[in-house]
Amino acid sequence: MIETPSLVDQYCHGVLRTELGLGTFEAQLTRSEGPPAPGTTFFDTQTGFAVRRWCPPLLGLEPHCPPARYLARRRELGVPEAGRRLLRGSGITAYLVDTGLPGDVTGPRELAAAGAAEAHEIVRLELLAEQVADTSGTVGSFLANLAEAVHGAAVHAVAFTSVAGVRHGLALAPEPPGAGEVRGAAGRWLADRPVGGTLTDPVLLRQLLWIAVASGRPLQLHAGLGEPGLRVDRTDPVLLTDFARATAGLGTDLVLLHGYPYHRHAAHLAGVFPHVYADLGAGLGRTGARASAVLAEVLELAPFGKLIFSSGARNLPELHVVGARLFREALARVLGTWVADGAWSLTDAQRVAGLIASENARRVYGLK
Amino acid sequence: MIETPSLVDQYCHGVLRTELGLGTFEAQLTRSEGPPAPGTTFFDTQTGFAVRRWCPPLLGLEPHCPPARYLARRRELGVPEAGRRLLRGSGITAYLVDTGLPGDVTGPRELAAAGAAEAHEIVRLELLAEQVADTSGTVGSFLANLAEAVHGAAVHAVAFTSVAGVRHGLALAPEPPGAGEVRGAAGRWLADRPVGGTLTDPVLLRQLLWIAVASGRPLQLHAGLGEPGLRVDRTDPVLLTDFARATAGLGTDLVLLHGYPYHRHAAHLAGVFPHVYADLGAGLGRTGARASAVLAEVLELAPFGKLIFSSGARNLPELHVVGARLFREALARVLGTWVADGAWSLTDAQRVAGLIASENARRVYGLK
Amino acid sequence: MIETPSLVDQYCHGVLRTELGLGTFEAQLTRSEGPPAPGTTFFDTQTGFAVRRWCPPLLGLEPHCPPARYLARRRELGVPEAGRRLLRGSGITAYLVDTGLPGDVTGPRELAAAGAAEAHEIVRLELLAEQVADTSGTVGSFLANLAEAVHGAAVHAVAFTSVAGVRHGLALAPEPPGAGEVRGAAGRWLADRPVGGTLTDPVLLRQLLWIAVASGRPLQLHAGLGEPGLRVDRTDPVLLTDFARATAGLGTDLVLLHGYPYHRHAAHLAGVFPHVYADLGAGLGRTGARASAVLAEVLELAPFGKLIFSSGARNLPELHVVGARLFREALARVLGTWVADGAWSLTDAQRVAGLIASENARRVYGLK
Repeated sequence: MIETPSLVDQYCHGVLRTELGLGTFEAQLTRSEGPPAPGTTFFDTQTGFAVRRWCPPLLGLEPHCPPARYLARRRELGVPEAGRRLLRGSGITAYLVDTGLPGDVTGPRELAAAGAAEAHEIVRLELLAEQVADTSGTVGSFLANLAEAVHGAAVHAVAFTSVAGVRHGLALAPEPPGAGEVRGAAGRWLADRPVGGTLTDPVLLRQLLWIAVASGRPLQLHAGLGEPGLRVDRTDPVLLTDFARATAGLGTDLVLLHGYPYHRHAAHLAGVFPHVYADLGAGLGRTGARASAVLAEVLELAPFGKLIFSSGARNLPELHVVGARLFREALARVLGTWVADGAWSLTDAQRVAGLIASENARRVYGLK
Repeated sequence: MIETPSLVDQYCHGVLRTELGLGTFEAQLTRSEGPPAPGTTFFDTQTGFAVRRWCPPLLGLEPHCPPARYLARRRELGVPEAGRRLLRGSGITAYLVDTGLPGDVTGPRELAAAGAAEAHEIVRLELLAEQVADTSGTVGSFLANLAEAVHGAAVHAVAFTSVAGVRHGLALAPEPPGAGEVRGAAGRWLADRPVGGTLTDPVLLRQLLWIAVASGRPLQLHAGLGEPGLRVDRTDPVLLTDFARATAGLGTDLVLLHGYPYHRHAAHLAGVFPHVYADLGAGLGRTGARASAVLAEVLELAPFGKLIFSSGARNLPELHVVGARLFREALARVLGTWVADGAWSLTDAQRVAGLIASENARRVYGLK
Repeated sequence: MIETPSLVDQYCHGVLRTELGLGTFEAQLTRSEGPPAPGTTFFDTQTGFAVRRWCPPLLGLEPHCPPARYLARRRELGVPEAGRRLLRGSGITAYLVDTGLPGDVTGPRELAAAGAAEAHEIVRLELLAEQVADTSGTVGSFLANLAEAVHGAAVHAVAFTSVAGVRHGLALAPEPPGAGEVRGAAGRWLADRPVGGTLTDPVLLRQLLWIAVASGRPLQLHAGLGEPGLRVDRTDPVLLTDFARATAGLGTDLVLLHGYPYHRHAAHLAGVFPHVYADLGAGLGRTGARASAVLAEVLELAPFGKLIFSSGARNLPELHVVGARLFREALARVLGTWVADGAWSLTDAQRVAGLIASENARRVYGLK
């Protein structure tokens, strides 16, 4: 039996502080362009079934109990107590939290307290740039403040994350943009932009990536499944090949998040470039009963020192549970089968499980 | 044991009325640019092996008997009787039949009688346009007749199907073409066209799609494996993302047929867009002993209310049998394993099997 | 139990004649843009684990023994004796050897002697062109010598291989380049080229392919994983579709090497075009414990008479062992499971195993 007693979740979000009804809970189970089709429900998905498998027992119910019964129990306990029970039942001992999404959600400190775990902040580059834009009067001050903000954030953040792929696609020119190009793009963006306007300009997105690379903190890049209505091939991690080559040897690690359905491509890049790592986990919560099959595909090409677990969870503590439980079970099953077949030794399998579950993350993010 | 006593086949063709020899039968087992390579046979394919597994027992022979023996028995029974035995042994209780292919094949009514099942017609848009072109004298009359023909067909057809992907690739502009653009394209096509000439013009293909969307009938779009000699990446369903966004909320459902080898992309779109459904089946007949693996990949992202079985069979009733049997066995195996592992409850598994085998199709196509 | 007593390795390289230390051995286990990341090792990969599983017993050690112990034993035996034991333990009875890589490696004759097997030469087109360029004074003499060199090599070579995909990507125009185009490209290349300079010009790469096609020898095309730092999607075999159509019926077979992670696309092309074959093996050595899963994916669409084993090994005899053992075990497992399930008959499975392991290769390459 291969055990992973301690999990570092290298990428997740906080959980909602508000009470949820059946419909609002259901809406959090997937990322969609609209409500469920007539006659269907998002509970009838791998994520929905995985939530019903793993979460009811943590709240004292039978696995697979009906959604309405589960939500009644959740309300009975109250959001904070249900959250504590769920998070503490996940097996996650450290959360790396992207604080860049809106909503009434817990921050890292609150998540740590609820989950009896440590927590660290991941800073989302595009939000940082938007905040700087909100308070900068001129192009010159914007660009100066931007660099300062990123380097300031690097002091306390454990990593940066970029959603450039989701905003523009990953087919970005790999080299840093020229100074004049950046000034021009900044000028156009600031001139047109309402307060709070989002950053989608490819030149500024690249500029942000390169400022982050200069900071030395690990840089997490969203790839694969992202904004539901966008073409998923625009976030194929293969599009990052030239950026990976351009940033090789600079001392900053790149972490490819999610990857699915292009997770084999992400694993390939993690095998090719010493500074590239691949996420193993975020796809699992989406694929549920298929988690072990998806995990096994990532384990084809990626060196075992280059894979890191995450839940990718947002808003519902149930998603942290599901990400963690599916990962642990899938890892134990896949590696256990290989041990049973004689393909791997048990010693190696246990060592690799520890690497992927927590040790690689601790090394890459400099956690103790 | 998960059972699917009744199957709705959402996409198939009729069966040949003519006697077949070994070579002509073999040629129907696959879609190829030429005859089998010297020293090889199309019976040595997953489809060939699946036919030899499932069909001989329905004609009173041992599974896996040699092809020549099977064909001798088929001739002995005669085409109509062999067809009846095969179709009635498939487990299909409703056929949705694309009548848009040439050849001496049975229509829906004849297929229904042979299979002791119900049958409904699917109208192929491009053939309809070609028929209208054959009988329209001017651009103006062609365009008027085209709209009328589609809306007329919508009265009796259960769905429309488009092979725009096979004819041009799915990288079509997502919005409806402008009226002037349509008139220009129609003029050029009609001027150059011999009687019976095929429609490949992208503007007219798009125009057809939008007329069909306006009809409210479900619109089936061919994706993945299609014309054998064409680049299969040109029919990647991811290319339909923008068309799906453009047609969201209009009240017409899109059904992505086939999908393989991009079936994970089709499943993703079915999860993202409320009006998009994915086919589950047509790939199975091609992949035979691997059907459960392929089916499991589709079950990763697609909500279970958004998947619909089809056989994709054409010309040989053996292909209806193989599509249906492989589907039933694969579904029972995949869901059964998940139940045995505790990942799904048996109740849920049985319910989902019923959705995919027939209930989703009955709801989407308005069958009773 | 499905047996493959004799393997024809349709694509491999020779083995290094020099002694290797832990670091230099490790560097041969993968293709990477740099050394292993700090805190990681290339032994922690599927290939590393597969070497530790299969090779120590051939040198009298326990499976999975530590790398340092294995290398000490290898040194103790000496490179030639270790090589003999490994190669003779692989089960390969015929090697087709690409002699186009630099380094102090054994040629076909030496590999045959060490492995107690037959061996045949595969000629790498681009190297041939570079050698011709080194000794040709003018464009006219270069082009004349090039055609002569290819046709001369066809007399003794068992096949040609092209790395056009690795050098330029497989998105090459499918038709033969025009004579003027070729003269122009040759003039520019020869003018700029230092002695030994590599060929990357797309017009000359295409010209080489077409000269090779005219020779009638099977033409192996590298696809999928290749140069580690290049975008892997540029070698997707789907990009060869139009070239396959352009060369259909000319009497020359095309063999798609590697393919992974696009091996399903390669299998598709092998199913569509009578003269196209797909490699089954080179991906297996890279994916180790996952070999049976990858092999099963190739077996979905490819006719069983169109698949050919290779190890893809280079430099280390351990990689010939791993390629061969993983293939044999994976094939026996996948086909054995299908037999146990009743999907295939045992007779068919044994026959198909023999086709893929050696008979298809003997037919295509005209071996006795």
